[in-house]
Amino acid sequence: MKVKKDEFTEVKGGVTAARGFLAAGIRSGCKNGKRDLALLYSQEPASVAGVYTQNKVKAHPLLLTRERVKGGTARAVVINSGNANACNGARGMDDAKKMTAEVSHLMNIDGESVLVSSTGVIGQPMPMDKIIPGISLAVKELNQAGGDAAAEAIMTTDTVSKQTALSMEMQGVKVTLGGMAKGSGMIHPNMATMLGFITTDALISPELLQSALGYAVERSFNMITVDGDTSTNDMVLVMANGAAGGKELKEGDKEFDLFQAALLEVCTTLAKMIARDGEGATKLLEVKVSNAASEADARLAARAVASSSLVKSAVFGRDANWGRILCAVGYSGAEFQPQKVDIFIGEEQVAKDGGALNFSEERALEILSADRVVIKVDMNNGPYAATAWGCDLTYDYVKINADYRT
Amino acid sequence: MKVKKDEFTEVKGGVTAARGFLAAGIRSGCKNGKRDLALLYSQEPASVAGVYTQNKVKAHPLLLTRERVKGGTARAVVINSGNANACNGARGMDDAKKMTAEVSHLMNIDGESVLVSSTGVIGQPMPMDKIIPGISLAVKELNQAGGDAAAEAIMTTDTVSKQTALSMEMQGVKVTLGGMAKGSGMIHPNMATMLGFITTDALISPELLQSALGYAVERSFNMITVDGDTSTNDMVLVMANGAAGGKELKEGDKEFDLFQAALLEVCTTLAKMIARDGEGATKLLEVKVSNAASEADARLAARAVASSSLVKSAVFGRDANWGRILCAVGYSGAEFQPQKVDIFIGEEQVAKDGGALNFSEERALEILSADRVVIKVDMNNGPYAATAWGCDLTYDYVKINADYRT
Repeated sequence: MKVKKDEFTEVKGGVTAARGFLAAGIRSGCKNGKRDLALLYSQEPASVAGVYTQNKVKAHPLLLTRERVKGGTARAVVINSGNANACNGARGMDDAKKMTAEVSHLMNIDGESVLVSSTGVIGQPMPMDKIIPGISLAVKELNQAGGDAAAEAIMTTDTVSKQTALSMEMQGVKVTLGGMAKGSGMIHPNMATMLGFITTDALISPELLQSALGYAVERSFNMITVDGDTSTNDMVLVMANGAAGGKELKEGDKEFDLFQAALLEVCTTLAKMIARDGEGATKLLEVKVSNAASEADARLAARAVASSSLVKSAVFGRDANWGRILCAVGYSGAEFQPQKVDIFIGEEQVAKDGGALNFSEERALEILSADRVVIKVDMNNGPYAATAWGCDLTYDYVKINADYRT
Repeated sequence: MKVKKDEFTEVKGGVTAARGFLAAGIRSGCKNGKRDLALLYSQEPASVAGVYTQNKVKAHPLLLTRERVKGGTARAVVINSGNANACNGARGMDDAKKMTAEVSHLMNIDGESVLVSSTGVIGQPMPMDKIIPGISLAVKELNQAGGDAAAEAIMTTDTVSKQTALSMEMQGVKVTLGGMAKGSGMIHPNMATMLGFITTDALISPELLQSALGYAVERSFNMITVDGDTSTNDMVLVMANGAAGGKELKEGDKEFDLFQAALLEVCTTLAKMIARDGEGATKLLEVKVSNAASEADARLAARAVASSSLVKSAVFGRDANWGRILCAVGYSGAEFQPQKVDIFIGEEQVAKDGGALNFSEERALEILSADRVVIKVDMNNGPYAATAWGCDLTYDYVKINADYRT
């Protein structure tokens, strides 16, 4: 699939950039006066697709949403931050249902078309006395410029809100995709890894949308890692309402290829925002593995390097400790030949043929001092490549997580 | 296998506690005037067995030792700390061979019976100008009370040296096992996980010794984790020289069962010492999973909890955040039913049937303030159990690893 990025135009508005979507982000009072409840609404029924955590422990709202997404159509998603509504027994599922029922009632839409997502502390009952009035307020505040407030309302330990949107021309019709995400700790590949909500006014069946989302998530959200922990609540949802007025996208058409590339671009942009905002992080770490024997090998290796506590600590300490990089590739499970591996930090080669090289420590220190550090691992073992994103491991990661709950 | 621990008597001497073993630990000048080179010697040829890193990148001395251990007999092991002799190309293997050749030459023993092990920085050539004179000094200093100095000489970021020894009666003969280990960072299960050297004066074939070591390592060193990184150099070696004068141990005999239990005890003691001395750690974390459907499930779950950065940070912060514990079990890969799980911190139950429970935060805080914290996860799903050991994640872990190489 060859799509050039210059076919995309960056636009503002996040999840409300695409036609026919409204959003709101309000203060329900659950999170110290900060925005903590978001509502996303499509004016017409939208095709919907989702990917979810692979943790065996799944939050109640996730189970409810997953069931409803199977129907293929949705109108709204209500999202709260501060409480994960996970491990709350029968009450947990009741509360998740009540949240969607309230949206359905106030907006007069089918209950099955309302989805729900939660993020925050596990094992504490939902403060429904605040959530229900909050939903009522969110419905009133729904508007076409609500993307910013919604992106803010889904944050937990995030230090910045995360959204992106882009437009493209498809046979004379302007099609837009926008998304928002949250995630800072408890981030690890092998699943959805965080909350992400993407909207588009393209016309596409739920089945093809699901396939496109799977492809994009595997190469974006599933390639970021902050701390190796896989949450109970993670999900990425995409809604497509066809409001742009174009033809329906079909697999094999070049329009679908363009859409697929755009969806990957939106997911990658959001994923990198999450990695860069990793708890306590001072740097974005980008690990590019090239010339691997298979895509799976490239991905295993890239993720292992980006996940290694020792590599992450060394990046924080601006130490060009390439031995830790090669070591992480070694235990990644990827097939490769150690004696063929070349390693670069930025443009500076630091290891050749799996061994030491005289390199400029000064130049390496300079590269490692930037707020984005690229590590390249050339396996010289085949044609496949993959990129993973992470961040450095800092004192502040420990600080944030030592007393998160209290 | 039912063996009571009261059949064992703790003794002093580490690797020189068993009859017929001498050791030395000297200062070769590689590590700022600290002891950095150890030599372990059996006066008679000893059966030998080993387990090694599963990292695809393997250090040169490890490859040499693994090859020689296949012969089943060994006389000596030379170990240096400060330089891992990994990823050093052809020169790396040459240097490893030169180290063993020097021991063989000076002691007039078969070159194939000398093993070598290294730990330290990856990718830097061995300082042979210091190592070779160091070996000469170590040979001169070999003595029956050398266990302490040897245990000290194999340390890297370890803050304390690690050794243990025990004796037992076998048909009127006193049989002794002793061991030393090093390891603090780069510790993770799924392999040997560190350096460990065990000696015994029991009489046992190399094959049965290998089987006994595999059994013991799987339940001890492979159940500890500090940071999820798996080193290029890890190995555990055991030498059995028969000097106690007892009968040869045979599989199925109750004497072998006793020996197996003693070997597990030595390995477990050393493994816990490593976990407690995890880089920057303030606490030993012991995770006991019970009533799992299989031993594999119990072990996966125990290791995932002990490895979780979020659980480790919470233990450091003395936060009874049981949601993170259940979450880690959830992504461990273990089969279980979340709604059946009970969780205890020490004796305080903090979750029941996979959900919240009113518990005493005060009592939990008290338990979490101790220097050993036990987390119990009862799966209520079968008869199997496993224990994993780890430590808390602290600011100092980051500090130690941010500038290890410099």
